[in-house]
Amino acid sequence: MRSPKGYLAFGTNIGIKDKTKDFGVIYSEVPCKAAAVFTRNNFPGAPVIVGKEHVKSGVLQAIVINSKNSNVATGENGLKNARSICEEIAKSLEIPVTSVLPSSTGVIGVQLPMSVILPACTVAKSMLKPNNLEEVAEAILTTDKKRKISVRTIPSEKGEATIFGMAKGAGMIEPNMATMLSYIVTDAEVEGDLYALLKENVDQSFNCLTIDSDTSTSDTVTLLCNGLAGKVKPNEFKQALLEICIDLAKEIARDAEGATKLIELKIQKSRDRAQAQKVGKSILNSPLVKTAIYGGDPNWGRLVMAVGKVFDEPIPFQGLEIYFGGLAVKGADSDTLKKLSDYLKKNTDIVVDVVLNTGNFEMKFWGCDLTEGYIKENAYYTT
Amino acid sequence: MRSPKGYLAFGTNIGIKDKTKDFGVIYSEVPCKAAAVFTRNNFPGAPVIVGKEHVKSGVLQAIVINSKNSNVATGENGLKNARSICEEIAKSLEIPVTSVLPSSTGVIGVQLPMSVILPACTVAKSMLKPNNLEEVAEAILTTDKKRKISVRTIPSEKGEATIFGMAKGAGMIEPNMATMLSYIVTDAEVEGDLYALLKENVDQSFNCLTIDSDTSTSDTVTLLCNGLAGKVKPNEFKQALLEICIDLAKEIARDAEGATKLIELKIQKSRDRAQAQKVGKSILNSPLVKTAIYGGDPNWGRLVMAVGKVFDEPIPFQGLEIYFGGLAVKGADSDTLKKLSDYLKKNTDIVVDVVLNTGNFEMKFWGCDLTEGYIKENAYYTT
Repeated sequence: MRSPKGYLAFGTNIGIKDKTKDFGVIYSEVPCKAAAVFTRNNFPGAPVIVGKEHVKSGVLQAIVINSKNSNVATGENGLKNARSICEEIAKSLEIPVTSVLPSSTGVIGVQLPMSVILPACTVAKSMLKPNNLEEVAEAILTTDKKRKISVRTIPSEKGEATIFGMAKGAGMIEPNMATMLSYIVTDAEVEGDLYALLKENVDQSFNCLTIDSDTSTSDTVTLLCNGLAGKVKPNEFKQALLEICIDLAKEIARDAEGATKLIELKIQKSRDRAQAQKVGKSILNSPLVKTAIYGGDPNWGRLVMAVGKVFDEPIPFQGLEIYFGGLAVKGADSDTLKKLSDYLKKNTDIVVDVVLNTGNFEMKFWGCDLTEGYIKENAYYTT
Repeated sequence: MRSPKGYLAFGTNIGIKDKTKDFGVIYSEVPCKAAAVFTRNNFPGAPVIVGKEHVKSGVLQAIVINSKNSNVATGENGLKNARSICEEIAKSLEIPVTSVLPSSTGVIGVQLPMSVILPACTVAKSMLKPNNLEEVAEAILTTDKKRKISVRTIPSEKGEATIFGMAKGAGMIEPNMATMLSYIVTDAEVEGDLYALLKENVDQSFNCLTIDSDTSTSDTVTLLCNGLAGKVKPNEFKQALLEICIDLAKEIARDAEGATKLIELKIQKSRDRAQAQKVGKSILNSPLVKTAIYGGDPNWGRLVMAVGKVFDEPIPFQGLEIYFGGLAVKGADSDTLKKLSDYLKKNTDIVVDVVLNTGNFEMKFWGCDLTEGYIKENAYYTT
């Protein structure tokens, strides 16, 4: 797998919960122009609070991540621990402490096991390897079944720049402003306002994703640009970044807790973004829509219900059109219902088009079905 | 079971879908002062549209209900059918057509089988029996496992007045303004604004209920008062009505699709009703909170997440208190976690208190856990 120049990394097990990888570090040999967006949950985790402080300068050089414990709702002690981790990493890597972005994901309300984390930070430098970002993509997982990576290359003034994105998702996913954990690192030199660029991309990718309507307290998307591949064309970078963010959002939906199907919903001919978002999220968050798609039940009436329950966005019923894989289903006869049921049962990527006919704005959203697997996974998570 | 004076009723099977009861009529020997509240879903069913027209006069004398088909998203033809049903019932019972409230519940988007419904309407009068409201409570069910009835008596000027309430629920339940199907009939003579009284009661009962965050297109609560027992004290009536509505709301939560536990949530010391409602619904709609309660997982952090994801109502974390069955769980040690897990596993009625410490407003909400049963029931509903 292509890796951007100048990034060293590792992911390993330090025994936070079980024997799977639970600790990772990404390090750039030179300081990076950086931006990050974070959860809008009003009780953000301690690493989110510290991360916001550190990324303010617009420069980062390392990311330190643990899974299996989110360091959320842990009070002053939690904050102290997040800061200690950054200090220890900064010391090991010989960089300023404000160049370290901390991240934690996992159970809420439990103090971090600092007795295993601090020693791992101390030896971080010796564990770093080139072309090793995949290990971090594995170390950040919790209930995810597989790692999520998306890579693009674009031309740069020195030849070629690589953008490497990774994410973790699974559950507690209805990102807002930011989402889950995702780290995107590149050797491109990107000019201009990196935060604005990242924000715009996230709004069209991760923020159009919902797994279960729950907004995590740890959501973080971070973009590091170390510039080693030289300047790139802003539009090419923007396009590649968007493709990576959408790739990762779809991967998160496909690998959502218990999910068997990715749902790609396009809201067409809506008045504006606000209307598209409300209707899109209402459909993809409806447990009845999600279970019907899981069971191959041709119950298109539930989509009507989900559009209609957005009280402050009344859509004329006459103009509403609903398509599954291109098949018009509103008012369907029994032949069409049979076709719809077949389509749902045969495909794992379900394409839904809902045409509102209230304007000309168009927007895509991603979600997944709701299955017994989601229940099983979440009924016994901490125990 | 006590029945209010002057009401005749029946519930029967006419073969709309299977062999269970699917058609019922409630009739009062004299015209009733009446009020009703309906769904806020922007695509209300045809019976809701017709029912709104008919109840405007404040007088009703009959309710005709079918289950297994909701007559929703059925266009002009659906409206015509709802009107035909009222006309046929009015003819049979020799009352004005505007005194008939129609209701339908069941699958969305399929035309009513008028060939079996109209003949049933024609012979309605001959099937009516006194003390027979229970049969209607059975005929209105869809995926409900049992009928839901609540009865209260209060003193009246002629001795005693009875208030008889019935409801159906199960799924697609996050009522707003009104809810599911519920019919409350009484022989009390109730003075004053009946709609305002009903609305106030519904806001403290059915509107504090959520099963799955989906708002049905058929929600209707109707109150009929035929006055045969004479005048009652307004406060006593109001109190009894509220008790009935809360009883029925709790019964709906207990018998929700797949549910194994009723959750009774009290939001305490909130700023006002708006804040309590947003936080209360956010907690009870969170799939992660619901699955944790199902599995007996002492994962109190998910409640913190659910309070925190109400972006426009930031609650100071310091002041937030969380209790399960009286047990304080925020920042719990392992002993407390064990107790919490035991409490969740041993009880089917789970009492949660969340104290916001932002004011002095207090409000109760009801919900249920999320289980594999909900998935099974809804993955294959129409097929």
